[in-house]
Amino acid sequence: MPRIITLLTDFGTADGYVGEMKGVLATRAPDCTVVDIAHDIAAHDVESGRLALARYWRRFPAGTVHIVIVDPRVGGPRVALAVESEGRFLVGPDNGVLSAALLNPGARCVALPVPSSASPTFHGRDVFAPAAAQLGQGTALDSIGIPFTEPIVMRTPEATKLAEGVTAGTVIAIDRFGNVITNLVAWRGGTVEVAGRILSIAHTYSDVPSGASVALIGSSGLVEIAVRDGCAAAVLNVSRGDEVILRHQS
Amino acid sequence: MPRIITLLTDFGTADGYVGEMKGVLATRAPDCTVVDIAHDIAAHDVESGRLALARYWRRFPAGTVHIVIVDPRVGGPRVALAVESEGRFLVGPDNGVLSAALLNPGARCVALPVPSSASPTFHGRDVFAPAAAQLGQGTALDSIGIPFTEPIVMRTPEATKLAEGVTAGTVIAIDRFGNVITNLVAWRGGTVEVAGRILSIAHTYSDVPSGASVALIGSSGLVEIAVRDGCAAAVLNVSRGDEVILRHQS
Amino acid sequence: MPRIITLLTDFGTADGYVGEMKGVLATRAPDCTVVDIAHDIAAHDVESGRLALARYWRRFPAGTVHIVIVDPRVGGPRVALAVESEGRFLVGPDNGVLSAALLNPGARCVALPVPSSASPTFHGRDVFAPAAAQLGQGTALDSIGIPFTEPIVMRTPEATKLAEGVTAGTVIAIDRFGNVITNLVAWRGGTVEVAGRILSIAHTYSDVPSGASVALIGSSGLVEIAVRDGCAAAVLNVSRGDEVILRHQS
Repeated sequence: MPRIITLLTDFGTADGYVGEMKGVLATRAPDCTVVDIAHDIAAHDVESGRLALARYWRRFPAGTVHIVIVDPRVGGPRVALAVESEGRFLVGPDNGVLSAALLNPGARCVALPVPSSASPTFHGRDVFAPAAAQLGQGTALDSIGIPFTEPIVMRTPEATKLAEGVTAGTVIAIDRFGNVITNLVAWRGGTVEVAGRILSIAHTYSDVPSGASVALIGSSGLVEIAVRDGCAAAVLNVSRGDEVILRHQS
Repeated sequence: MPRIITLLTDFGTADGYVGEMKGVLATRAPDCTVVDIAHDIAAHDVESGRLALARYWRRFPAGTVHIVIVDPRVGGPRVALAVESEGRFLVGPDNGVLSAALLNPGARCVALPVPSSASPTFHGRDVFAPAAAQLGQGTALDSIGIPFTEPIVMRTPEATKLAEGVTAGTVIAIDRFGNVITNLVAWRGGTVEVAGRILSIAHTYSDVPSGASVALIGSSGLVEIAVRDGCAAAVLNVSRGDEVILRHQS
Repeated sequence: MPRIITLLTDFGTADGYVGEMKGVLATRAPDCTVVDIAHDIAAHDVESGRLALARYWRRFPAGTVHIVIVDPRVGGPRVALAVESEGRFLVGPDNGVLSAALLNPGARCVALPVPSSASPTFHGRDVFAPAAAQLGQGTALDSIGIPFTEPIVMRTPEATKLAEGVTAGTVIAIDRFGNVITNLVAWRGGTVEVAGRILSIAHTYSDVPSGASVALIGSSGLVEIAVRDGCAAAVLNVSRGDEVILRHQS
């Protein structure tokens, strides 16, 4: 079956950059299906790219090739990576954005060659899309680069145990709805302290009245804080990096 | 022929939520073609989702499966719907967003089961995408849920006849260009009163000089007010819900 | 092999307009693959559409059909074009947005008929998508319109030679990263004067410290000014149309 090639970038959709990459893919991997993930990752925000990839990369079938381009150091000495992990392939810069796949113990990497003809400002078009096309057409990982064993791996910071049943975490992301996503792993029944408020962990948004704050376990298993029908980040004045305290019920 | 699955959400394109849904579709409906409609419906704006769907759902061929996720009450008691209407299928929350298809007299609905493993904040991924995949693979509507006969149906409010040839309508939407879309059905030759101005109904934007206001019959057959080369909503200070008076020529 | 149909518009992705066009394509060109280029071209910004198209149209394989809809004069007397150029097809308004393909000496044009049923505000749906579907299904250019030999062609303004080794150019675009793109063609080793600063032409962004300005040769061969990890347009207070001076090394 022809492979899927997915595309996550911070290019936005107001010009022709994404189109150039898709033109390369259409020409070099005509049998593959190209799937847009998102192009509005904040410019140069490697961390947001990393967290986005963690959500979807393993939900696609084995054989899928994921292109991830959030690449503020393009053209410099940073390595261009291709990765094979749990049967999926990934290409992108060696800056941690591919960490979700690299954390898998069986992950293998190669460093992609950068041809002298490649634009030093657009490896997405000249290095990563061609490599993804090769992988999508069935070329083996080892044929497209040289082994590379020390990729940069970023991890979501772990929460800190302060006392029995008390854990300090941080805000790792704010989504489009203003929901505040933390690094806290929880189960039902605890409370969360954020921005001076203490919230019980509920089941879903509509467990509280419109306009009220609510903590809950989000769709990736992490504690989130939301405001029903509102924007929690704005209402609570919370930003990425802020502290959140979880008190588990024992 | 393999079916098309379309996707309309209010998730935005700055993270991995859309990617998670597409991963589910790629895995469970590998023969289907997934088509993005739009992901920038204003967060939780069921009414905008409803109006958007009304524009496109019947333009796709019979057999198409439309996923529509604008779902502020996800995880609460609201029903998860699948619908068959005029040969198309639709899945989404029972909050009126699917009304365009439900208004068709032959529409049939089922309530989808929500597995206990489903995230209470992401039925798009755990309920609706799996249901769409089943429909896309040819499973019958009746096999994926239990009959449901009382879905919520929202209608665009009807204009009010004030006198012979005089109708009061409202602004139902503002598009990206700032064009003001009303609920008034008109033919050529009348006038529209909006924000203290009286405008003749013209043929198209360029019937007036640059910067001038113009009323016309938009592409869905409703009266619109535009400013040539400008943003009518801003220039005229008009918002959703404002009154617009149509005077028909007799 | 079934053809590709690409789609560039200024419609945004907050409503159903793109969906209506895709519904027409899905119905009339069911064997074609539809590829989104971008939908966030600034509203009515023909020049941005023209520059975007220049980047990608020739990177797609021969036979591809490019739809380009940035069409502020829709419904007026402007001609609806279909073009064949270097084996690719294009459809869009005759306002210069298709210039990249029209500049090719072998380009051929036809004027598309506008059926009386077409909405005067949405030729994308009622004229261009149907024409693209016909081309995508293999209908010949000459069968879908009448020969048209005087399309509007816009060119990026040429830089002006001021003296030996000194050229005055202008800013033609700002990208999402705030990178300032000029109409200057350069090679390594010169300097660029912009907003009162003189910058050496470097290889890539990371040749300078974080926060510093840098000139370089961008991915389309034109001189760009960037700020490492920053937004050059904001930091340098530069806009489209501003002057930039290139001093070549001899």
